[in-house]
Amino acid sequence: MSEPSPHWSAEEFRQHAHRVVDWIADYWEGVDERPVLAQVEPGEVAAALDVTIPDEPEPVEAVLADLDTHLLPGLTHWQHPRFFAYFPANSSPPAVLGDLLSSGLGVQGMVWATSPAATELEQLVLDELARALGLGEAFCHRRTDGQPATGGGVISDTASTATFTAVLAALHRASGGTVRTAGTAGTDYVLYGSTQAHSSLQKAAMMAGLGEDALHLVAVDPWTQAMDVAALRRAVEADRAAGRTPFFLQAALGTTGTGAVDDVPALAAVAREHGLWVHVDAAWAGVAALLPEHADVNTGVAEHADSYVTNPHKWLLTTFDCSTSWVRDRAALIGALSVLPEYLRNPASESGAVVDYRDWHPQLGRRFRALKLWTVLRCYGRSGLQAHLRSGIAGAARVAELVEADPRFALAAPPSLGLATFRLVADTGGRPLPDDHAEQATRELMTVLNTSGVAYLSHGQTDGRTYLRWAVGGWRTRLADVEHTWQVLSDVAASVLDGG
Amino acid sequence: MSEPSPHWSAEEFRQHAHRVVDWIADYWEGVDERPVLAQVEPGEVAAALDVTIPDEPEPVEAVLADLDTHLLPGLTHWQHPRFFAYFPANSSPPAVLGDLLSSGLGVQGMVWATSPAATELEQLVLDELARALGLGEAFCHRRTDGQPATGGGVISDTASTATFTAVLAALHRASGGTVRTAGTAGTDYVLYGSTQAHSSLQKAAMMAGLGEDALHLVAVDPWTQAMDVAALRRAVEADRAAGRTPFFLQAALGTTGTGAVDDVPALAAVAREHGLWVHVDAAWAGVAALLPEHADVNTGVAEHADSYVTNPHKWLLTTFDCSTSWVRDRAALIGALSVLPEYLRNPASESGAVVDYRDWHPQLGRRFRALKLWTVLRCYGRSGLQAHLRSGIAGAARVAELVEADPRFALAAPPSLGLATFRLVADTGGRPLPDDHAEQATRELMTVLNTSGVAYLSHGQTDGRTYLRWAVGGWRTRLADVEHTWQVLSDVAASVLDGG
Repeated sequence: MSEPSPHWSAEEFRQHAHRVVDWIADYWEGVDERPVLAQVEPGEVAAALDVTIPDEPEPVEAVLADLDTHLLPGLTHWQHPRFFAYFPANSSPPAVLGDLLSSGLGVQGMVWATSPAATELEQLVLDELARALGLGEAFCHRRTDGQPATGGGVISDTASTATFTAVLAALHRASGGTVRTAGTAGTDYVLYGSTQAHSSLQKAAMMAGLGEDALHLVAVDPWTQAMDVAALRRAVEADRAAGRTPFFLQAALGTTGTGAVDDVPALAAVAREHGLWVHVDAAWAGVAALLPEHADVNTGVAEHADSYVTNPHKWLLTTFDCSTSWVRDRAALIGALSVLPEYLRNPASESGAVVDYRDWHPQLGRRFRALKLWTVLRCYGRSGLQAHLRSGIAGAARVAELVEADPRFALAAPPSLGLATFRLVADTGGRPLPDDHAEQATRELMTVLNTSGVAYLSHGQTDGRTYLRWAVGGWRTRLADVEHTWQVLSDVAASVLDGG
Repeated sequence: MSEPSPHWSAEEFRQHAHRVVDWIADYWEGVDERPVLAQVEPGEVAAALDVTIPDEPEPVEAVLADLDTHLLPGLTHWQHPRFFAYFPANSSPPAVLGDLLSSGLGVQGMVWATSPAATELEQLVLDELARALGLGEAFCHRRTDGQPATGGGVISDTASTATFTAVLAALHRASGGTVRTAGTAGTDYVLYGSTQAHSSLQKAAMMAGLGEDALHLVAVDPWTQAMDVAALRRAVEADRAAGRTPFFLQAALGTTGTGAVDDVPALAAVAREHGLWVHVDAAWAGVAALLPEHADVNTGVAEHADSYVTNPHKWLLTTFDCSTSWVRDRAALIGALSVLPEYLRNPASESGAVVDYRDWHPQLGRRFRALKLWTVLRCYGRSGLQAHLRSGIAGAARVAELVEADPRFALAAPPSLGLATFRLVADTGGRPLPDDHAEQATRELMTVLNTSGVAYLSHGQTDGRTYLRWAVGGWRTRLADVEHTWQVLSDVAASVLDGG
């Protein structure tokens, strides 16, 4: 400690940080002139970079120079106004600052005692968001209806984690706690999701020691892509008759493919009959309930769900990672996950008066993520959040309108909030294409459009037929970006169809 | 989209961001005048805050005002120069800027194709760090020794996650892949760690469907706290004789309690005989291998480990979260975790020429975390990193020296790098205290010191006897902070012993 400090002074930090802030502002201002999808070959970025740790400190400008020269051409620009692939992953200006504050504070909220305000702000913000999304009092840490609070919300990294922990909590409940001690050996538990369920459900079954064979996928309606309630009932009854133990149902409010909305009340009726835990995956769509005209998106959750997840880091402007999930019975979740080594014992935990979030997810260490979510909620306000959500919905509605007005295209499923899905089905003269030709043309359209760099769309399949997904909801996206992309896509389609 | 944009302009962002940067610089400059440990009661912060989502946007100053007034008094200040609890969780200035860039870019690296440069920089940086830590070529994505590359590194959130995925990879290998499909039902797998193993190992056994009973804890040497190799051998042999299937051993290089170092080569010899996967938990201590004089800290890893984890977000100045782990056989890890839904299929993945990191951990979405680690490595340089590590080691050595010079105290275990552990054992006259009195006095010393706000130490136990943990390694800690804390601690001890 007698050596000179290797750390920047406060003045150096200010100076470098102001420089980085300006770099980000410039990046955002100029991002729409870049190709959305990275135009590099495998290994190209790696071949150009030297990452040898230097002997002596380098200035932050050296990092920025490499970013400009070597990394930006190799990045796919998720904040680009014409990024329409997957779902939006908004990193809005207020969220970036909230996250910056969290980095600066650098506190760990693994248990209440290690930073009480981090835990308590998270509880408050999750309660407020639960109410704003219509999830009801049962999911709140502090109920206002006089009932004892047995549920609560938590921020974790991704919906994959929230789904995994929901499976573990359900297993804990179904087994009366024996899975925690004795594992799943000798059991034959079964989970259900639709054929459109997110892949994280399969991964959760694998990680929990149940195996992917334990996941029974239920058929969906061919047009709406919503889970077939009668098919679920048949599957559960058949599994019970075969001596298996159904214990978990995942319903989706907004599937990853087409944004399909499962009928939670009807599915929950089956689940209740057979004692299944009902987990609702509303990772993308759930936040739309902030709009009065879409308050129904979370229908059935307040009454029927055991757990629920939505990701503010998708559509709700909160820099990744910020996945918010809630459980009706926190005892099941904590029962599945709590461990208490001596080095974490403390009077507050032992008093039972506090929440220790390390018992709510797989990780121990945890960042102060409530801060960025809170910053977003305040700096946008309800009006700003609603304007943003409506803008995405209007964009997707415009896409659907353009698709329906063009005889070459057909919608693949009902448009859902900020998502429209479609495929090529006819030639330039409006004559139906043979299936294999339509399939090939749709795939070529996607490849050519994405390779052009103008916009980025992703894809999915129903019944083995590919469709394009156009998800609107980026914070930099304007209606003009939708219109411009449609023009280019339409021209590409013409060229693909002519060449085919 | 016809409404006015709810988003800040570039100019507004610059202005607000510069304000936040200055707030952070001021916070760091003034943090040593705050109590280290939050001085609030359960519920106190929550009672003072109103987190109702406002109808209209609020300025970022409103967030900063609430931070100052309501949150800071409720935070435990992990960046405080006299934070000596747990392990350091450094959020250094360069790391904060690297993380800020990652927020601004807002890219997702779940598969190579969704942002190639994010994946390739991570591979390069992890290869470079593997070499710098002496892990050897077998853990690198790109080997320089002409051998085919079958291993590689990944950044995940915490060592808990890395340990969990190591267990899953080991299960995949041990079961020949059947756990992935059929789960752990009908099996009787056993894991091993020492009684000093981190609690995340128990949690991993629970989450993987093995149950906590599957974890057999092996005794340690009473002084060094390192795993007893003969005891491991006896445990494995007994389990095999009982028809169980031993498959996983966790060795620790720097335990959470006292920083104990297990003998990896000796343990690995037992593991090899019985086909156990060897996972090495060097979460805190591993980075010390950047020092030539401590290159031996990772002894045995290059030759014997199947997986290895160390956390740059602890001692290596990289803002949480940044846990780096490596596997020798990536096929086992990917085999356990890969899922490939249609919506993520892409030509690059199908070519086999790229790494898709979503198959390396439970989560799908992933932040561009390599950027902050790379920024730290460059902006400190090897000399800066080494100066920082040496400063922590010198601080702990000073603590050990003070403990040994004071007859009231005794070391609880050998000092280990930046960690010293000790307890009260004698009265002010140097006469040994009865065990129960020593225990009570040691606990009271901790409580009074921590409550004073001057410094924050945590604790552990060996053989049921409490010790204090003094971990040095914060980026704002100077030797004067160690000396000052010792003065206060010494006075508190006098008062505790007099009152006892």
